[in-house]
Amino acid sequence: MSASVSATLSDIQGAARRLQGVTLRTPLLENARVNDRLGGRLFVKAECLQRTGSFKLRGAYNFLSLMSGADRAKGVVGWSSGNHAQGLAEAARLLGVKATIIMPADAPSLKIANTRASGAEVVLYDRVKDSREEIGHGIAGETGATIVPPYDHPWILTGQGTTGLEIVEQARDANATLDAVAAPCSGGGLATGIAVAVKGLSPSTSVHAGEPAGFDDLARSLAAGSKQRNEKLSGSICDALLAPTPGNVTFPLAQQLLGPGLVVTDEEVLDAMEVAFREFKLVVEPGGAVALAAALTGKLPVRDRTVAVVCSGGNVDHATFRTALERHPA
Amino acid sequence: MSASVSATLSDIQGAARRLQGVTLRTPLLENARVNDRLGGRLFVKAECLQRTGSFKLRGAYNFLSLMSGADRAKGVVGWSSGNHAQGLAEAARLLGVKATIIMPADAPSLKIANTRASGAEVVLYDRVKDSREEIGHGIAGETGATIVPPYDHPWILTGQGTTGLEIVEQARDANATLDAVAAPCSGGGLATGIAVAVKGLSPSTSVHAGEPAGFDDLARSLAAGSKQRNEKLSGSICDALLAPTPGNVTFPLAQQLLGPGLVVTDEEVLDAMEVAFREFKLVVEPGGAVALAAALTGKLPVRDRTVAVVCSGGNVDHATFRTALERHPA
Repeated sequence: MSASVSATLSDIQGAARRLQGVTLRTPLLENARVNDRLGGRLFVKAECLQRTGSFKLRGAYNFLSLMSGADRAKGVVGWSSGNHAQGLAEAARLLGVKATIIMPADAPSLKIANTRASGAEVVLYDRVKDSREEIGHGIAGETGATIVPPYDHPWILTGQGTTGLEIVEQARDANATLDAVAAPCSGGGLATGIAVAVKGLSPSTSVHAGEPAGFDDLARSLAAGSKQRNEKLSGSICDALLAPTPGNVTFPLAQQLLGPGLVVTDEEVLDAMEVAFREFKLVVEPGGAVALAAALTGKLPVRDRTVAVVCSGGNVDHATFRTALERHPA
Repeated sequence: MSASVSATLSDIQGAARRLQGVTLRTPLLENARVNDRLGGRLFVKAECLQRTGSFKLRGAYNFLSLMSGADRAKGVVGWSSGNHAQGLAEAARLLGVKATIIMPADAPSLKIANTRASGAEVVLYDRVKDSREEIGHGIAGETGATIVPPYDHPWILTGQGTTGLEIVEQARDANATLDAVAAPCSGGGLATGIAVAVKGLSPSTSVHAGEPAGFDDLARSLAAGSKQRNEKLSGSICDALLAPTPGNVTFPLAQQLLGPGLVVTDEEVLDAMEVAFREFKLVVEPGGAVALAAALTGKLPVRDRTVAVVCSGGNVDHATFRTALERHPA
């Protein structure tokens, strides 16, 4: 499957029709003071306000909508300790599909409770002893349930790409022509989906993926021209962005459509969360703030330009948010 | 001037046309978990995301738009330590009008800086020795500048009322029929403006104003049938909601259009701010959270009903927000 076939603008427009009335058209925010400070126009796509607190419902709902009725009757299974779990569970609830979510036994109790609250069956596993993939494939084999991957599938990335359609439309409504768009990146579903949409509608706009330092597998892969892996599997506050290597579906699209990667430190992420609090009145989780951090630090230049960044999620615990608040300059 | 003449649905529709492309159509958010817990449908109108961090830009911009060109050339003057200052300063900047804002010398330095950043001239006064009204009238007398009041004027309340138009339209888009709408109340511009809009479009929807305990002048005035005053002028964390008594323009409208007042404690407000953080990913200031607090506590019943509450502002300092985060149940 070539990159140009795996996902097209038309696929994303189809996903947008399926998501109509289901997902929120999150606002594209702008702040005069931030613009003055940066010397350009910065838009923030507030996807942390999306149902379930992140963009993940877009891809999951699109995926489940495209499944056959017979497959849907057999249920879906997925694994995630975070946003994909909640998005998948909610998509399944909305469509009346049985969902089994495999979560680590030491996941925050609130996240487990939230996933159960959507009606999903939660299967807990031991991070050290068990393989969640094995458990998931076992359930799928027994029940005929469909595995819904977190990013590496055209139906997922075209769903996430609807975020990009909205950004282009909302920027037009604000009489703005976008020089660049950036989104957080773990496996690349959101960033490549947005790239397909944005490049399809506005070819001269550059699209970038943001990653935490030490987990910049996509930035290094783009620079090297081949898939690279992260050395570590944990150790960033950006818990949503720790995929070890780009996806097989997402990487060819990334090579074709994305500009150079943006890499930010945990400290820069905390600063961006504080700005999101103080200026945009948004609760953004660490992984959701990496593209904003790139814009605020000048790694993604805003001066004399018009730039949109996606704040992709808001599922942050109280202690981490307090840490960000402590970075107040005043 | 009778209440029915001071502001009509048609006036608010006119204001909405003037605000088109200026103010943000803030989203109407809904959360499945919160709905499950309350046993009904609760919508949150996220007006904390509005430009300048509160709804105040709506009224100020509408007022300045309706002034004659000759009056605009002489400038505007207003007094406020908070959201009205920022909304008025920004409206003046957008329309190229000179603004003088009278602020207490002990106001938070960030709020003074933010007001100056909009290009307004800030005149500081001593809360103990000086009268801000006298200073304001003095400036107006010398320069011919127009005094822009924070709430007690038809042009202000019809601007704020555009929030109500949007709520009704957005609820319709979500296939919801509203049983009740509630908004925070200080002098009553927002609540009565919303009431004019909502009652005009949906007469069977009740509209309520929320106030902090001890500063419930409107609730007591509505119950008594005549304007009552608060005993205290300070002492609530809801610093935006401390007007001493209902306005002369707003109170007749409130008597005609509002249901019983909703009164919440500071503790209930902090709890609501925590829910706004955790479930809605919104930064809401104390005064902006009183209507949400009324819904979460059942003072404004949501069970088996559909209710919308306005979260009217997000200009909260870091220390107060940390206090709210400490009320986490987990």
